[in-house]
Amino acid sequence: MIRIFKINFVCLSFIFFISCFQGNAVEVEKVNAGIWKISVGRPDKVNLLSELNIAPRTEAILEMGEAFMPVSVEDLEFKVVDGKTYIRFPLEKDEKIYGLGLNFKTVEQRGRVMRLHADHYGGRDNGRTHAPVPFFVSSRGYGALINTARYIDVWVGTGIRKDSRNVPIARDRNTDPEWTSRPYSDNMEFLVPAEGVEILLFLGPTMLEVVQRFNLYNGGGTLPPRWGLGFWHRTPTLFTDKLVMAEVEEFRKRKFPLTVIGLEPGWMSHAYPCTYEWDTVRFPDPVGFIKKLDDRHIKTNVWINPYISPATKLYDEIKPYTSSHLVWCGLVPDYTLSEARQIATRHFEENQVKKGISGYKLDENDGYDYWLWPDVAIFPSGNTAEQIRQIYGSLMQDMTVQMYRKQNKRTYGLVRSGNAGTSSFPYVIYNDYYDHRDFITALINSSFIGVLWTPEVRASKSAEEWLRRMQTVCFSPIAMLDAWADGTKPWSFPEVSQQVNEIAKLRMRLIPYLYTAFANYAFKGIPPVRAMNLEQGYKDEVKMEKGKLDATENPYAMALRKEIKDQFMVGNSLLIAPLFAGETERRVVLPKGKWYDFYTGEFVGEGEIITVAPGLDKIPVYVKDGGIIPLWPGITQLENRRYPLEIRHYGEKASVYDLYDDDGETYDYEKGERTWITLKVDIENNGKKKGTVIIPKNSEVWSFSDYKFRFMSSVPPKSS
Amino acid sequence: MIRIFKINFVCLSFIFFISCFQGNAVEVEKVNAGIWKISVGRPDKVNLLSELNIAPRTEAILEMGEAFMPVSVEDLEFKVVDGKTYIRFPLEKDEKIYGLGLNFKTVEQRGRVMRLHADHYGGRDNGRTHAPVPFFVSSRGYGALINTARYIDVWVGTGIRKDSRNVPIARDRNTDPEWTSRPYSDNMEFLVPAEGVEILLFLGPTMLEVVQRFNLYNGGGTLPPRWGLGFWHRTPTLFTDKLVMAEVEEFRKRKFPLTVIGLEPGWMSHAYPCTYEWDTVRFPDPVGFIKKLDDRHIKTNVWINPYISPATKLYDEIKPYTSSHLVWCGLVPDYTLSEARQIATRHFEENQVKKGISGYKLDENDGYDYWLWPDVAIFPSGNTAEQIRQIYGSLMQDMTVQMYRKQNKRTYGLVRSGNAGTSSFPYVIYNDYYDHRDFITALINSSFIGVLWTPEVRASKSAEEWLRRMQTVCFSPIAMLDAWADGTKPWSFPEVSQQVNEIAKLRMRLIPYLYTAFANYAFKGIPPVRAMNLEQGYKDEVKMEKGKLDATENPYAMALRKEIKDQFMVGNSLLIAPLFAGETERRVVLPKGKWYDFYTGEFVGEGEIITVAPGLDKIPVYVKDGGIIPLWPGITQLENRRYPLEIRHYGEKASVYDLYDDDGETYDYEKGERTWITLKVDIENNGKKKGTVIIPKNSEVWSFSDYKFRFMSSVPPKSS
Repeated sequence: MIRIFKINFVCLSFIFFISCFQGNAVEVEKVNAGIWKISVGRPDKVNLLSELNIAPRTEAILEMGEAFMPVSVEDLEFKVVDGKTYIRFPLEKDEKIYGLGLNFKTVEQRGRVMRLHADHYGGRDNGRTHAPVPFFVSSRGYGALINTARYIDVWVGTGIRKDSRNVPIARDRNTDPEWTSRPYSDNMEFLVPAEGVEILLFLGPTMLEVVQRFNLYNGGGTLPPRWGLGFWHRTPTLFTDKLVMAEVEEFRKRKFPLTVIGLEPGWMSHAYPCTYEWDTVRFPDPVGFIKKLDDRHIKTNVWINPYISPATKLYDEIKPYTSSHLVWCGLVPDYTLSEARQIATRHFEENQVKKGISGYKLDENDGYDYWLWPDVAIFPSGNTAEQIRQIYGSLMQDMTVQMYRKQNKRTYGLVRSGNAGTSSFPYVIYNDYYDHRDFITALINSSFIGVLWTPEVRASKSAEEWLRRMQTVCFSPIAMLDAWADGTKPWSFPEVSQQVNEIAKLRMRLIPYLYTAFANYAFKGIPPVRAMNLEQGYKDEVKMEKGKLDATENPYAMALRKEIKDQFMVGNSLLIAPLFAGETERRVVLPKGKWYDFYTGEFVGEGEIITVAPGLDKIPVYVKDGGIIPLWPGITQLENRRYPLEIRHYGEKASVYDLYDDDGETYDYEKGERTWITLKVDIENNGKKKGTVIIPKNSEVWSFSDYKFRFMSSVPPKSS
Repeated sequence: MIRIFKINFVCLSFIFFISCFQGNAVEVEKVNAGIWKISVGRPDKVNLLSELNIAPRTEAILEMGEAFMPVSVEDLEFKVVDGKTYIRFPLEKDEKIYGLGLNFKTVEQRGRVMRLHADHYGGRDNGRTHAPVPFFVSSRGYGALINTARYIDVWVGTGIRKDSRNVPIARDRNTDPEWTSRPYSDNMEFLVPAEGVEILLFLGPTMLEVVQRFNLYNGGGTLPPRWGLGFWHRTPTLFTDKLVMAEVEEFRKRKFPLTVIGLEPGWMSHAYPCTYEWDTVRFPDPVGFIKKLDDRHIKTNVWINPYISPATKLYDEIKPYTSSHLVWCGLVPDYTLSEARQIATRHFEENQVKKGISGYKLDENDGYDYWLWPDVAIFPSGNTAEQIRQIYGSLMQDMTVQMYRKQNKRTYGLVRSGNAGTSSFPYVIYNDYYDHRDFITALINSSFIGVLWTPEVRASKSAEEWLRRMQTVCFSPIAMLDAWADGTKPWSFPEVSQQVNEIAKLRMRLIPYLYTAFANYAFKGIPPVRAMNLEQGYKDEVKMEKGKLDATENPYAMALRKEIKDQFMVGNSLLIAPLFAGETERRVVLPKGKWYDFYTGEFVGEGEIITVAPGLDKIPVYVKDGGIIPLWPGITQLENRRYPLEIRHYGEKASVYDLYDDDGETYDYEKGERTWITLKVDIENNGKKKGTVIIPKNSEVWSFSDYKFRFMSSVPPKSS
């Protein structure tokens, strides 16, 4: 049985009107400025957002103003067939599609086929990933979230419909050189295995605004505690308290920055499955240990995974609220049940939060089929295994954040899985896959789908790779060395130890800038680390390279897509163009306007493609004309005191920068305990630059005392 | 809503009784000796077998006799949850599971997770393959077909159930060296996305008997025409009739065997999408051309794919019976509709069959997501795109076979996709993936699931690889060089040209033996090329090699499975142990009993593992003690005449071999026009061997005239 619904909502002035069709089978409802909800058939009770404690930032969305839907409603289609929901969006010839999960190899998604499915990333962009967010952003200036916790199939411009207005002509492969294995399709189609679905439309007009509305609807971006933006180090899994303290002392002696120590499974009495209780031999006095670290201005983060050991006190109490299947012989709690959440929360509060732990690394909630519960598992809530898998990471993030909210303490941590609705949760996704170049592509893609990603460093085959990885992780949401298995240290490669030290210190210097970038994420929905494609004036370079026929390698002569997927923006003004082991030079695509070298202030180019060879010591970083970058000193510990600010200005333009400030630790900023400090550079009549700092009257300043402007020279580079 | 059905059928004497549960939600019905049907919930109308013109070989199954179900019915479970059917089979600790699709890298499937989905093979055994047959064979001596045309998820011993009787103890990964990422699971679970399903149980007691019952239920194995077992060559796609004839002449001059020429897309006026009509420039006189080839005892096979060009006469007539989506801008016929079948059949008969074409290469019915119709496509029959994709290859096989049946002519050809129910269709699966070692694993796996596979040769990087590929393809269901894109010839590498000629001639010599092996496939369901695991007395060697922890390469210290997947049986007595480019020696696992070198007759070992270094010229082939191998002379053309037989006997045992014979071309053998000739070797009192040929009285002999026994020496090998 097929039921076809065409939306016939009327596009009147700036807004669509709510309308119905065939007994409310499709309902269209305006949610907020530039946000619409379409309800098709009978959507599931549980979706990606329904189980989370999040609320849209209504005011901020309203401030963005209204926006047009750039797509004709005639071109949308929804139908329910054979118990599944079919969705169609149109695709114009030069339209580009971004998002659709945390992909590692591709940025633009046109021409791809995926099944969005929570999983560890297995080396292919097939939809199985740590954040299978079913949200796309179109270059036409709109986006949509298919808000279902089912595995969704999507064909992004592959299927060609017989009834299409744009059917390409059939060509003879025998003789027509224009024949292609992949002719133009004007469709993006989704298949949701449920008898209905809720779809949320987010309008632009720009792609960045689409993303902003999406993030604001999901509660805004997260604002981590300030210490979260320092340098993290995770110690080997079986380290004792004494070994950890010795490691911390070594950081101090060698003057390497350190703000967070992460403990791996060995802190627990039993792991895989977990007790969530301290091992009394390795950690006889957890409270004393955590306090000692606190005294050194170092926070403590602990690893956990979701699977519950028979050896924990928690076990019997939570057992009725767990699934039919075990993982590593441990119980799998059904965290869509408040009972399960409450039981776990009590145990976590007692054993971690109240002992002073600053946050978690939430491992293995992405699932890896070989040991995860199968989709035939039964959960006591009645939600299906599929639905629970899609949101397990989201549920764990939410539950742990609520514990910290109760304490009025911000947390910041790591998680292996997320989905739509998690942008306001202070968690950064990581994984076991370890390709450095692909890590950067994931960093870029995270910005389209409302999640954060870290290209964490574990080990390297060479000093060069080590330094290149350290350089990129220091421009990511968490700058972290994860030595759980290898026992690596930042100074593991002595030949680049000094350079690693410098990049880690640069990370510390950038904290005011990064913290402001996160504030813009929180209040405006602007991703702190983001794709070039979200930058005004950036022209991406997706090229199809004609395929060469080869009977065994390329029998369909498929074209190869070349795109820029190795440079990105951090905050308002910084463009990062990392190099990878083996490279000595690279191309950088500069968006419209003038750009300057971060380190020297030299002019490097204007809306053009440049080739740079910065040497091993430096990661190329460029600043937009008029870019203002507030910097701290190169501290190694983040103490509870004010730091003087170096306020750099680049290029020729007069400009203004709003520096965000608050206590850096509590949720009081949500109640107004925050300040935006204006940093202003004017160009005077004589061409000289003049800097001004304006602190709003009666407002508090938490994180800096004195300041000094530094106007970076903008002379052209010496010819090399 | 969950409905759980436990089968409570009574196991009385040798058979189960038909029983019902909760309003016929589960029905168990005996189908034939050792074959049971379980019907759960409301199975789909369309399944893997329902659309095919096949009938069980009831007599042959009855002859096999009854068999026990080795699994307690208590351990089976069926339930319908959330519109899907959940199925559970138990797994004992040392039980092995084979089958579950045409896998390329693994033979034993325990510990795997797959979604069985018709597709081109993409380099991973994840269920996406050319023959996603949802049939497994258990080493306990039973098998089951999950008879649904849906994509099926299967967890083969990965999920551990809380209510299991065999839950392994939870271990602490921190300190327990016995911790494993993949503890024992006593379940194999299936998820069928439909509200019911039919399951067919096939009993043993041996695994070979399970496979036999499965094949016989599906109509028995195919018996190809005798010419199909010769040597095939496919010419470059844009070859004209003259170029093809020149190529044929070159084969003759160089004395290379050739029985079938395959024409690639260029024979057609338009391809991708197809007209199925001859190109009048390249082939001005198809009938004359085919006749000329026939005169040289060469059959003509033509390539087609399913997608219909606007340039064909067929187009308008078939359009109403095609799907909502196009492929390569061509129509996709819904061959579950008899209208579509009839229209296409008429066109194919007119343009190919009646012009003398011997058969087809049915390309691209496996689907490749990037250009196939998506699962949201609508087909006019109302069957879903998913269902049609799962059986598209089966439908095309069936339709074309029916055309040849009408002519009382057997056909033999190639196909890119099959599923359950196709064992009686004369088609061999091939693909574009090209790893030689994996090709052999596929050859092995094809025998568990009722399909045939050829490791066809296209091109090679070296003479060594060329020869190694030629050696293996000559021991496969179709010995073929596919030069469609590369224009390779058997003599393309002059340094091994002589050896290629010899192996191709050996293929021709083996035709009587291979034809008999196929007759055993047809009448007894015994796969002609098959896994060692189906051989009595074979002990496979699946080893788990302990994994080494590595933070970036193996973070879960997963064990690596080592298994034998590069040797196989052909017919009753031949064990083939190919070498691959780069290898000079290999290990061969010999089943119980004595084994002899095929070429020399020398004794090589007895139920042991030997290491052999046969040199580049030879592919290791071993013969079972008492093996009788009938051989033709090394002909290069298969003429319509009788050939003398060399009847080889190997080893020390007296033995009997039933040689099959019929006209080799028509379906008259099904009406009794066939002969089994007894070849018998006795050992006389003086130890001398004596051979006898017994032709049943009043029966016709088609394919051989005189014969000569050759008793292969069984002296032990010289020490090298």
